[in-house]
Amino acid sequence: MRKIPGGVTAAKGFSAACCAAGIKYQGRTDMAMITSDSDCAVAGTFTTNLVKAAPVVWDQKIVYEEKKARAVVVNAGIANAATGKEGMRLCQQTAAFTGKALGIPESRVLLGSTGVIGPQIPLDRITAGVAAMKETLSSSLEAGTAASRAIMTTDTVNKEFAVEFDLPGADGSVPVRLGGMSKGSGMIHPNMCTMLGYLTTDCAIDQALLQKALKAAVQDTFNMISVDGDTSTNDTLLLLANGQAGNTPITQEDESYAAFCEALFSVCRDLAVKMAGDGEGATRLMEMRVYNADTKDHARTLAKSVIASSLVKAMVFGRDANCGRILCALGYAGAPFDPEKIEVYLHGENGDTLTFYDNGCVLPFDEEKALEMLSGTAVRFSCNLNMGKEEATAWGCDLTYDYVKINGDYRS
Amino acid sequence: MRKIPGGVTAAKGFSAACCAAGIKYQGRTDMAMITSDSDCAVAGTFTTNLVKAAPVVWDQKIVYEEKKARAVVVNAGIANAATGKEGMRLCQQTAAFTGKALGIPESRVLLGSTGVIGPQIPLDRITAGVAAMKETLSSSLEAGTAASRAIMTTDTVNKEFAVEFDLPGADGSVPVRLGGMSKGSGMIHPNMCTMLGYLTTDCAIDQALLQKALKAAVQDTFNMISVDGDTSTNDTLLLLANGQAGNTPITQEDESYAAFCEALFSVCRDLAVKMAGDGEGATRLMEMRVYNADTKDHARTLAKSVIASSLVKAMVFGRDANCGRILCALGYAGAPFDPEKIEVYLHGENGDTLTFYDNGCVLPFDEEKALEMLSGTAVRFSCNLNMGKEEATAWGCDLTYDYVKINGDYRS
Repeated sequence: MRKIPGGVTAAKGFSAACCAAGIKYQGRTDMAMITSDSDCAVAGTFTTNLVKAAPVVWDQKIVYEEKKARAVVVNAGIANAATGKEGMRLCQQTAAFTGKALGIPESRVLLGSTGVIGPQIPLDRITAGVAAMKETLSSSLEAGTAASRAIMTTDTVNKEFAVEFDLPGADGSVPVRLGGMSKGSGMIHPNMCTMLGYLTTDCAIDQALLQKALKAAVQDTFNMISVDGDTSTNDTLLLLANGQAGNTPITQEDESYAAFCEALFSVCRDLAVKMAGDGEGATRLMEMRVYNADTKDHARTLAKSVIASSLVKAMVFGRDANCGRILCALGYAGAPFDPEKIEVYLHGENGDTLTFYDNGCVLPFDEEKALEMLSGTAVRFSCNLNMGKEEATAWGCDLTYDYVKINGDYRS
Repeated sequence: MRKIPGGVTAAKGFSAACCAAGIKYQGRTDMAMITSDSDCAVAGTFTTNLVKAAPVVWDQKIVYEEKKARAVVVNAGIANAATGKEGMRLCQQTAAFTGKALGIPESRVLLGSTGVIGPQIPLDRITAGVAAMKETLSSSLEAGTAASRAIMTTDTVNKEFAVEFDLPGADGSVPVRLGGMSKGSGMIHPNMCTMLGYLTTDCAIDQALLQKALKAAVQDTFNMISVDGDTSTNDTLLLLANGQAGNTPITQEDESYAAFCEALFSVCRDLAVKMAGDGEGATRLMEMRVYNADTKDHARTLAKSVIASSLVKAMVFGRDANCGRILCALGYAGAPFDPEKIEVYLHGENGDTLTFYDNGCVLPFDEEKALEMLSGTAVRFSCNLNMGKEEATAWGCDLTYDYVKINGDYRS
């Protein structure tokens, strides 16, 4: 597997476009479109929030019933959530207009929205945007990158990643590509999925296996990040596979499926970690690895509890090695362990390690050294539970004045 | 039931004292002591955090095994948590010294600590403090108030409350008193209890009923507040009953027990709401009431999810009526409801009500009116689930720059 440039247009047969539709933001692009020049098997995971945005409901129907798609239309600025029947009607009309413009059924058009909850989307601007984007669709890497910028809200950087790997084909080994983009900065505490993420691949793969692979990858990537503990109404991750790579179609859980899953995990993890590090107001990424756990679920629960703790997040912002807060967050997580038998470490970017806690006690440590290790762009903690062999890693970011500033006055 | 002045010394037979022991803070009192001049039945609830501070373990043994107590010694500044066997040894020595000074067994001495996790408490200063406090013990209301100040950490106001109610006695109706104090401002998300809370009553009541009443009261008071989602390692709530009021002892769940429970609930709610409103960095109290729920547990879960949401908290700080965030926090809480059938309201301090959400949609509202209603010292939301007859209320506070400031540099 090799990292390659690009995002949603890295794989064969996919194009992208974007435009400034003036939905809410001024002077920047705020709509994006992805298309495939042939039908795709589609997999998706969605928010577990009971209050689901209209485009989530729309996409779920396509992913669970139709299982095929050709296009995705996304807008930033308005979430189309808590918008009732009118919000659903606007989804249908957006898809119908897009389908007509592209010459495909409306049931092949996936939708995504992100932004403020409550207002209805302005249909005239959305359809004008779709008409404009249709004219500029391009399979260039630049078109994919521009699309990843158009879906940003409070994000400070765009997020894309792509890999290439080899699978057996009719003429020996053939290269297969998988890439994607995502956005998300606040209201980030995905449960079954992230904010908005769009992945494309030219791999030929059975739809049921595609869905299974996506669900598994999400578990240890997008579901292991948190910015603020708030699970959004709009979380959507879609994976489109158009089969144009020419590989022998994957129809069972063989070595090819394993190679595909590995590539998918790699793309999901990269995008998820980028989202955590670009959390609203964040100055640094925070990572917590829990190992030697009795079960994978317990390791996940403990790791996520630490990166979601307001007090740990504020301490990382203040570069204060107040490691008792990590102990506290492990203790209330809800997974069992023996406080007398665990060890907690801080890891520096240059490979240094500081032992914070052992034998039931916070240990004395070199404050200057700790300050230096907490001053990088990423802060990494780990905890050895000494119970078993399972492990999990979670990613978050620090809690800063800017998070409060951004969210104290979001709508204006 | 009547509200009366005072706190832990409001009930007959209780005395209090405090001193500046120099544990961590300078130029202020940081130790408090409460004593009863006769043995008390004692009830307690404690943190569910797996990492329990040494004084929590010490108090649990007394509450669950001895069931009697005469004194409480509390220090602010150091939590005596994550301190291993040495921390437990320091508890035993503190209790032994106090017992000897007061002429009671060490097993009648309850302990409490709050502050930074990790360091050991300085035994010499603690015992010097106990010796000094013994000389100034007083049953005056002022002594109780001074004690409630001495246990503060990042609290900005001291918290005490007391009530008087009537129960049948040998000579007809006799007045019974119940009062208490508490502290807590950060790491506040109690689970089975609050940070530190000490209640005293002169009621004569069976210890098993005392424990039952306390557990029930905590459920809808201290367990329904959150400042930052972090359940502390030190949460402790103790209730001492010395029986000096002269009432006919309460030995069954009769009308007297009901009157006692009502008074206890009232004191617990007052102290809990004070803690929520004085959360670290807070500028205003936030209240969320969920009613017409199918079960009490679901109502509690939904109410608590809203007051714990970082995005709702930041919006209350910014006085931004972004009510979609309340919908979002209800939706991910984990309790079932139908988003199409609920209503969400904002309540002004003068009795005005604004409907935010109905029939599955965020409604248009008067922004100026909403700004005015969000500008008071308390912000109240409610949600009608239209499902059943149960209700619950939770209390929290806004998320501010000062929360980040306080917790980015706590130890210095």
